Amino acid sequence: MEGNKGMVAKQLEGKFLSANIMHQVKKDISCFPSAPRLVSLLIGSDSGARSYAKIQESACKTVGISFELIQLPASTSEEEAIEYIEKLNNDPCVTGILIFVPVPKHINKNHLIASISHLKDVEGISPTNMGKLFYGSTSIVPCTPKAVMLLIKSIGYNLVGKEVVVISRSPIIGQPLLLMLLESANASPTPVCCHIATKNLEFHTKRADVVIVAAGKANLIHGHMLKEGAVVIDVGINLVENIQDGRKVRSIVGDVHYSSAMEVASWLTPVPGGVGLVTTAVLLQNVLLLAKQHFTRLGRVDTL
Amino acid sequence: MEGNKGMVAKQLEGKFLSANIMHQVKKDISCFPSAPRLVSLLIGSDSGARSYAKIQESACKTVGISFELIQLPASTSEEEAIEYIEKLNNDPCVTGILIFVPVPKHINKNHLIASISHLKDVEGISPTNMGKLFYGSTSIVPCTPKAVMLLIKSIGYNLVGKEVVVISRSPIIGQPLLLMLLESANASPTPVCCHIATKNLEFHTKRADVVIVAAGKANLIHGHMLKEGAVVIDVGINLVENIQDGRKVRSIVGDVHYSSAMEVASWLTPVPGGVGLVTTAVLLQNVLLLAKQHFTRLGRVDTL
Repeated sequence: MEGNKGMVAKQLEGKFLSANIMHQVKKDISCFPSAPRLVSLLIGSDSGARSYAKIQESACKTVGISFELIQLPASTSEEEAIEYIEKLNNDPCVTGILIFVPVPKHINKNHLIASISHLKDVEGISPTNMGKLFYGSTSIVPCTPKAVMLLIKSIGYNLVGKEVVVISRSPIIGQPLLLMLLESANASPTPVCCHIATKNLEFHTKRADVVIVAAGKANLIHGHMLKEGAVVIDVGINLVENIQDGRKVRSIVGDVHYSSAMEVASWLTPVPGGVGLVTTAVLLQNVLLLAKQHFTRLGRVDTL
Repeated sequence: MEGNKGMVAKQLEGKFLSANIMHQVKKDISCFPSAPRLVSLLIGSDSGARSYAKIQESACKTVGISFELIQLPASTSEEEAIEYIEKLNNDPCVTGILIFVPVPKHINKNHLIASISHLKDVEGISPTNMGKLFYGSTSIVPCTPKAVMLLIKSIGYNLVGKEVVVISRSPIIGQPLLLMLLESANASPTPVCCHIATKNLEFHTKRADVVIVAAGKANLIHGHMLKEGAVVIDVGINLVENIQDGRKVRSIVGDVHYSSAMEVASWLTPVPGGVGLVTTAVLLQNVLLLAKQHFTRLGRVDTL
């Protein structure tokens, strides 16, 4: 039996924060002259992407954003895809552009990302928007890291001087998170970036005040690897199969072994129902910000 | 007496690496149709900047880069400064632009940096160039972090799986260094980012295989704070005053207490003569890269 420490963490659910963000986005959009429009581009076919597109569509509908899923065949060349993105860049009716990953193997994902205008980069992952992170950008930033920061803020947790272990070195989660942590307060936390090649992961997690996991590995972090009272943010989404009553049962789990971590942590995000919900809300918030920037530019043009 | 461990570090001097880089830059530039031109902009007056401008001028001369120091009065407004930078952006005779810091207090330094075209951003600190770091850019990157990475590479040190402590959270040193470390190898090191607000700095430095210090605090790191055999890179440049034979003597020292660290580390960069020399060489390398990119674009235009 793991993590038998007597503490039971509070579940840090995403639904309240997500609902708050969406409420504000809806209110702001209701004052707009026209509905912002989000275009999600799917090249080829991917069941995960289709599921996520449905979630996006429903969330967009709730707040008054027009949503369109555009599907291009898997045979689309990189050049054709970039040409298509450039059309969307130049289309005044498109507020934000998102590209589903994975893309077919003959296409370099980074080339597509770099071709999205930073003025329509709803995920905040174009080089120009990412570069602003070094200068403390609070505008269009990557959705998942922002969701993590908002969740930590939502419980009134003070990061000053804290040790934070981030288990991810990905360019759209771990790396921007490191920068957001460093920019998060005048006297900011001390982040440690762990990953699959880190020797003795437990040594790092065991002494961390905050552990953020986005390794994509089911049950990577167990209760015995955590410091008592740690805040644990689980970004992982893993599809696992178990045998229950002789039948195969599929379920979604995070990177944290939930029951053992609950006995050691002070706060723990559930999967599903944690970071993912807030990430979708932040995406809508980014559509709103892009639309506001667009109207500001139009205003400026009118003034000239 | 500190650090009496019997080991004496090898001095990791910058002059050899710097000379190699400059030799290659000079060779490449000699094949160019015209000399690239670096413009350094100094707003107001700063003795440190003037000294550095002299170093730049001399280094540029050595490799065949035309150098110009432009001085604007301290009363220059932010708008006027940005207008001036835009002129330089549009001047086909200017290859690279650099702005000396500090700038006068009424000017937001970040606004100036953001106004430099990424095609002329010789220091690699414009948002667009910084953003490319997330995607493993090896082109125009910030000079000091690149110098640090090159120095580590120059001794054949293998970073795979190593613990690296970076003492700096600055947007142009610590933050890009973290990203470069994470992108530096397939199985990359585990970086820890410490800074002025880090509790128990020694706990982190004591177990690090590599310590990189850019805190701007003389003698912050003493030998007893290091692990035996650590590689220590001292980015600090501090002007200190001592009394010698009854007279005030000014000298330049790093962030590392040199003599005690030499007895514990395996490699240690001296100050001066370490990172600074290589940083200047990397700056020239960036001028070369910008010039090459410029010619490539011209070539493309001709082909169209």
